[in-house]
Amino acid sequence: MSLINLHSTADLHSNAIIIDGLIIAKWSRALFEDMRKGGLTAANCTVSVWEDFQGTIDNIVMVNQLMRDSADLVRQVHTTEDIRQAKREGRTGIILGFQNAHAFEDQLGYVEIFKRLGVGIVQMCYNTQNLIGTGCYERDGGLSGFGREVIAEMNRVGIMCDLSHVGAVTSEEVILESKKPVCYSHCLPAGLKQHPRNKTDEQLKFIADRGGFVGVTMFAPFLKKGIDSTVDDYCEAIGYIMNIVGEDAIGIGTDFTQGHGPEFFDMLTHDKGYARSLTEFGKIVNPLGIRTVGEFPNLTEALLKNGFSEPQVRKIMGENWLRVLGDVWGTEHSQTQESGAGLVSEQVVAASDAELAFQG
Amino acid sequence: MSLINLHSTADLHSNAIIIDGLIIAKWSRALFEDMRKGGLTAANCTVSVWEDFQGTIDNIVMVNQLMRDSADLVRQVHTTEDIRQAKREGRTGIILGFQNAHAFEDQLGYVEIFKRLGVGIVQMCYNTQNLIGTGCYERDGGLSGFGREVIAEMNRVGIMCDLSHVGAVTSEEVILESKKPVCYSHCLPAGLKQHPRNKTDEQLKFIADRGGFVGVTMFAPFLKKGIDSTVDDYCEAIGYIMNIVGEDAIGIGTDFTQGHGPEFFDMLTHDKGYARSLTEFGKIVNPLGIRTVGEFPNLTEALLKNGFSEPQVRKIMGENWLRVLGDVWGTEHSQTQESGAGLVSEQVVAASDAELAFQG
Repeated sequence: MSLINLHSTADLHSNAIIIDGLIIAKWSRALFEDMRKGGLTAANCTVSVWEDFQGTIDNIVMVNQLMRDSADLVRQVHTTEDIRQAKREGRTGIILGFQNAHAFEDQLGYVEIFKRLGVGIVQMCYNTQNLIGTGCYERDGGLSGFGREVIAEMNRVGIMCDLSHVGAVTSEEVILESKKPVCYSHCLPAGLKQHPRNKTDEQLKFIADRGGFVGVTMFAPFLKKGIDSTVDDYCEAIGYIMNIVGEDAIGIGTDFTQGHGPEFFDMLTHDKGYARSLTEFGKIVNPLGIRTVGEFPNLTEALLKNGFSEPQVRKIMGENWLRVLGDVWGTEHSQTQESGAGLVSEQVVAASDAELAFQG
Repeated sequence: MSLINLHSTADLHSNAIIIDGLIIAKWSRALFEDMRKGGLTAANCTVSVWEDFQGTIDNIVMVNQLMRDSADLVRQVHTTEDIRQAKREGRTGIILGFQNAHAFEDQLGYVEIFKRLGVGIVQMCYNTQNLIGTGCYERDGGLSGFGREVIAEMNRVGIMCDLSHVGAVTSEEVILESKKPVCYSHCLPAGLKQHPRNKTDEQLKFIADRGGFVGVTMFAPFLKKGIDSTVDDYCEAIGYIMNIVGEDAIGIGTDFTQGHGPEFFDMLTHDKGYARSLTEFGKIVNPLGIRTVGEFPNLTEALLKNGFSEPQVRKIMGENWLRVLGDVWGTEHSQTQESGAGLVSEQVVAASDAELAFQG
């Protein structure tokens, strides 16, 4: 690659909208600094997995303080205009996201409460059964009646439904039920490796055919070569999914977990955070070349090197997420609650993960 | 009074900004209809007295639904611009308010959470001691250390401190501690009738001299003539307080309770909502002429009849509240959290009451 090409690659990354549809890294100023190093425009950052309503509020309180203390690096985003504004300011826009709808408890009204606090994407289930449906690690009886009401409320207020860790039956029923686009914010194709968390070609086609969206993760145990994978293997998976869903319905959802220790992964991989063990991933190393958030520019470079066109790279790296989030969140800026429209505001990207992802 | 005068009085009421600094009536469409009948531009409506954090969230959820169902009559307001917008739309702006800071529990971060949900005024204590200070019905040891931190956080995010039911020592210390204007949202002068809830001339002067604000209530047991009072006696009390605090630091805070039954007043008048009984008011009847929210225009008329000038009436009926709320809430419209400014948004009026106020 010539020096000129290297320069243009760096330019592309620095002037493009770069959105990560799922990060579950440890919240800290160090993370925000790495986001800036990686040139992230916005990211969907997990604030709830097993926590109940008030436990999730407590997480948001903690995160609000961290964002305030690092206002030179990050800003909260409620709308896609906020994301564009973050880009202009050279800050990273933070979208709050849940990996589990458990925090809604049994109250439809809590959906709107969280929307006002900046939650833009919520995964319907996390690995196991909740009041809405069932996750991908146990028998899945499908979407509940209450789940249908939750989806209607999420549609109304503008929170995107995420299905990454949701079971196949529940996922299909959510896709059919939702009146707004839904997503797998962070998944890999079963066509490259069989795994309960990976999605079959049929599942990928099903969501895309109904206006849905797919964010591609790079979680090593779900990649063909496991912990020996590189950023090129990540590009292969992106290409595989793009061939099925098309170049407008695909984005990035890394599932970065940097900064967390073993206790965090123990919590994630046990049902309810403490009950039976659900998964065992062994040693986890992110693909070579994209082991940390700060290495994000390498992904842009690798996509170009692997034959993706510049317009495709721009779409994959963020423009597609920006468009679909706008579709779900609406274009109003005010959070003031109004009649039918509810509090129409927007917020950025995707969902979260229960997988181990120790940084090698 | 000539027909021409009657017409101009009605015109004055209908084109003025009318703000009620405290309503604790039963939330319902019937109340919203009466607010429209009374020509209310905005009102501070109580959503928390003894409830804890999540109990208060549940009240807000209920209120959100009610407001959505009556979006033809009301709108939530976060800023003074929202109040002006409500006026233009012919709807009543709803400010959420607490009569007790108990809902903040022991978490400073909950202050910002509630601000985002539309809470614009919070009374520091309700009748008895809490984590912040002490109410007006027991020995008052003053403002706690945590209370000082709560005030700083309320100042930062823009929630007005209300002291109506707060003890004398705590009130004085809050007035000195707060960097933004504080209020007695609904009080009467001890100079007209001695009562633990009424404020002495010295107290009224003390708050006004430090940039604070006084909303005048009409709760019959605190008025000189009790349940035999009329709207003219209410005007007398307003005049008494105006003579002390001046015509720019005074507004209305009725303490309307219409729609509630005896159980609600039992809850209010017992510590924590169920413990020892704190007060006994006997039969309660609002002053003749202003027994319901819908009779609000009579107050404008009575003030004019009692010799207040038109500019004074406009200030007392709403303009003063609008100004002081803007001073506390700031002028930003966005609820997006930003660096030092926090989520600078605005919201309307005042506090709430533990008094009985059965509608005759």
